[in-house]
Amino acid sequence: MSKASKVNTNVLIIGGGVSGVVAAITGKAFYLNKSFTLIRKESQLIDPCSIPYVFGPLANTSQIQVSDDSLKSMGIAIVTDEVVSIDQNSRVCKTGDGAEVHFDKLILALGSVPKTPDWLEGVHLENVFTIPKDYQYIDKMVTALGDCKEVVIIGGGFVGFEVAYELVQTGKEVTIVEALPYLLGTAFDNEAGSRAQIALERQGIKVKCGTEARGIVGDSRATGVLLSNGSTLPADAIIVATGYRPQTSLAEQAGIQIGDTGAVPVDQYMRTRNPDILAVGDCAETRCFITGRPNHIMLASTACAEARIASINLYRLSAVMTFTGTVPIFCTAVGDTAFGSAGPTERDAKKMKFNVVTATYEGVDKHPRDLPGTHVQAVKLIVARDSGVILGGEVIGGASTGELTNLIGFAIQNRMTVNSVLIGQVGTHSLLTAAPIVYPLIRAAQIIAQRIWTV
Amino acid sequence: MSKASKVNTNVLIIGGGVSGVVAAITGKAFYLNKSFTLIRKESQLIDPCSIPYVFGPLANTSQIQVSDDSLKSMGIAIVTDEVVSIDQNSRVCKTGDGAEVHFDKLILALGSVPKTPDWLEGVHLENVFTIPKDYQYIDKMVTALGDCKEVVIIGGGFVGFEVAYELVQTGKEVTIVEALPYLLGTAFDNEAGSRAQIALERQGIKVKCGTEARGIVGDSRATGVLLSNGSTLPADAIIVATGYRPQTSLAEQAGIQIGDTGAVPVDQYMRTRNPDILAVGDCAETRCFITGRPNHIMLASTACAEARIASINLYRLSAVMTFTGTVPIFCTAVGDTAFGSAGPTERDAKKMKFNVVTATYEGVDKHPRDLPGTHVQAVKLIVARDSGVILGGEVIGGASTGELTNLIGFAIQNRMTVNSVLIGQVGTHSLLTAAPIVYPLIRAAQIIAQRIWTV
Repeated sequence: MSKASKVNTNVLIIGGGVSGVVAAITGKAFYLNKSFTLIRKESQLIDPCSIPYVFGPLANTSQIQVSDDSLKSMGIAIVTDEVVSIDQNSRVCKTGDGAEVHFDKLILALGSVPKTPDWLEGVHLENVFTIPKDYQYIDKMVTALGDCKEVVIIGGGFVGFEVAYELVQTGKEVTIVEALPYLLGTAFDNEAGSRAQIALERQGIKVKCGTEARGIVGDSRATGVLLSNGSTLPADAIIVATGYRPQTSLAEQAGIQIGDTGAVPVDQYMRTRNPDILAVGDCAETRCFITGRPNHIMLASTACAEARIASINLYRLSAVMTFTGTVPIFCTAVGDTAFGSAGPTERDAKKMKFNVVTATYEGVDKHPRDLPGTHVQAVKLIVARDSGVILGGEVIGGASTGELTNLIGFAIQNRMTVNSVLIGQVGTHSLLTAAPIVYPLIRAAQIIAQRIWTV
Repeated sequence: MSKASKVNTNVLIIGGGVSGVVAAITGKAFYLNKSFTLIRKESQLIDPCSIPYVFGPLANTSQIQVSDDSLKSMGIAIVTDEVVSIDQNSRVCKTGDGAEVHFDKLILALGSVPKTPDWLEGVHLENVFTIPKDYQYIDKMVTALGDCKEVVIIGGGFVGFEVAYELVQTGKEVTIVEALPYLLGTAFDNEAGSRAQIALERQGIKVKCGTEARGIVGDSRATGVLLSNGSTLPADAIIVATGYRPQTSLAEQAGIQIGDTGAVPVDQYMRTRNPDILAVGDCAETRCFITGRPNHIMLASTACAEARIASINLYRLSAVMTFTGTVPIFCTAVGDTAFGSAGPTERDAKKMKFNVVTATYEGVDKHPRDLPGTHVQAVKLIVARDSGVILGGEVIGGASTGELTNLIGFAIQNRMTVNSVLIGQVGTHSLLTAAPIVYPLIRAAQIIAQRIWTV
């Protein structure tokens, strides 16, 4: 944006990631007469969920760029520039290029950046990487990893899990180091975490759970990771995948409240204390659907829901389209085995102080099991004993795992009980689902309903 | 059962199909102290949904037999015999072998048989087949079809559709004759029906929609089908797949009411007028979830829901586990393309007199679309304009189509509105689902919500 220019827009969105784009296109669809401007630092958006596949079947980030076509075709102005300050009183943002943007409504979609564990000695050495949502960084990293044989990934969450699988397919020797006793611990209980570990190990990935990284060794270039058990893992490259933190410095400087989670607290319409300034996506602090306590889950799908709600309610409130709390829904896959989770794990539900009943039913995802491509399908449900309300669920299965997890997610969002699921009608088909008699979601509900019923 | 024997059982289930088995195993799980007896004509149960695959990748019906293990391990008595009469007053059934079975509670799971169009000249000729749920018939049919080159299927519903696809894979020339203008007309609107037709035609199947079969020609053996357009299709074998009718003669003889649909009317606990006699599955007349009018959908998945409800409520009513009406949920697949439908079609919703808003959003089922195995995914929603309540939906897609259709089915059963779906949280993953920005179910809901909102 040229120096000293002045721009007026009805709605200004800061951030070109998933939540920013969804806020813009949804808002414009509902408020055709308002002008929308999206300002972002990057010249292009990449789909963050697809980053791991750039280390595998996709050549580089050009294949995961999200097109600006839908923004442009709707008449949303896209500005590549950096907002350096927000004045809440005069409703003006200033940019790095010296422009002033006047707005009625401001949507903060500031996103998140990798948590770099600065306490970890050697973390800034050459050949130590993180996974930011930055296509230039990722493309350079792909090139740098080209010559590396041994890769150590610190962190066994979703990013570490998926990147490990893609790298091992390209012939590298990969080791994951995870401090917790299981992989994917934020989303899965021990059984599923343990099966996820077995799925990786079958691909030749070494997994060291219950092991902490204590330092990175090497002079200028990293050569290994010092572990809590005293040994050193040799490495040609190290990937630190220990989570993300919200980017909120711009908001903080503008006097916008920052919550204990480090993100910007919002109401059910995604508004900050200033009702004309909203926050969505990774920079927003929402509340847990189950307990109502502040929380901060960074998921593209949750970010999209938040962005839709923010922009639909910009100028006219809906009494029903409110954000009623975060239901974390995750899914991932290695090879032909997928893992999905919706709502809290059993471990988390117990920490919340629920009296929990759980059951797992394991079957297959097609029927009969002799059909080609049939995969094990196991469903676990986590239920509050007093009411039978479904709090969470986990799925291990094949290609239908994502949508089956979403089915559990909808059950949670509708506060369905095991009774309702047990008598629910589901379509079944030999090639597409489990058999009707043994449909695992219903059978897991049945086991729990029986236990509650016979009390 | 030996002649003149007398048997006492708490619960007698007549019929060994899907609904009979589910009624038995669910009832026994909830009422451990009651004795359960299942009486069936057949020595073995086959999974009816899998019958088409016996004409394809599976060798014969031995691969689709459903094991008796779960019945036996729970201590449910299985009797292979035929019930010839029911005495409602004395609560006794008599069998073909002359036994008397005394019961407290009777569950009719009598099933259905193919509608044979007796008005169709030549329908009883040799080499004219139907598709009954009878493993001996099906195995003989597979053998008889072995030498046939040209097969004509009368009826373009699910059974005709799936059998056509399997037969063409084995090198036969297959033609479907359907009186309606589109295939799969009970479950899909014209667009999806038309795409289903294209999917079959790509496999080399000839599809003649809007064409009636007027007669079957041949002396003892069928040699062709006379069509409404005056031509005759040559055929070595003909399969009549024009639907099923409930088997209710036993109930009728016992003085149990038969409804206008030809099935046995039941209340929300699946009880006939006699509260100790229940009916489930294809022989039971239920009500439409949307309108409450009597209806009669024959689906294994609905049958299972009915059977679960009947048996859970046998001796102790649940205030919540009631049958609240049939939501037909169908899915099928040819090659890698699957079709799913939940609730009424747009055509049916209009016939019911709803002021309907519909929208279709088409995307892909993985992201980015360059990933291997990515399939088109289109979602259509059918919504009541006054309330935004979702009445029905249709899906075209890949391997996740069945569970995505079930997600729409749960939305319908929870009477969710497009508003709730639009702000719903769904998990997304590159390998398992559409991208979060363009998740087709949510985008279809958005289009409709915008239309309602801007009024």
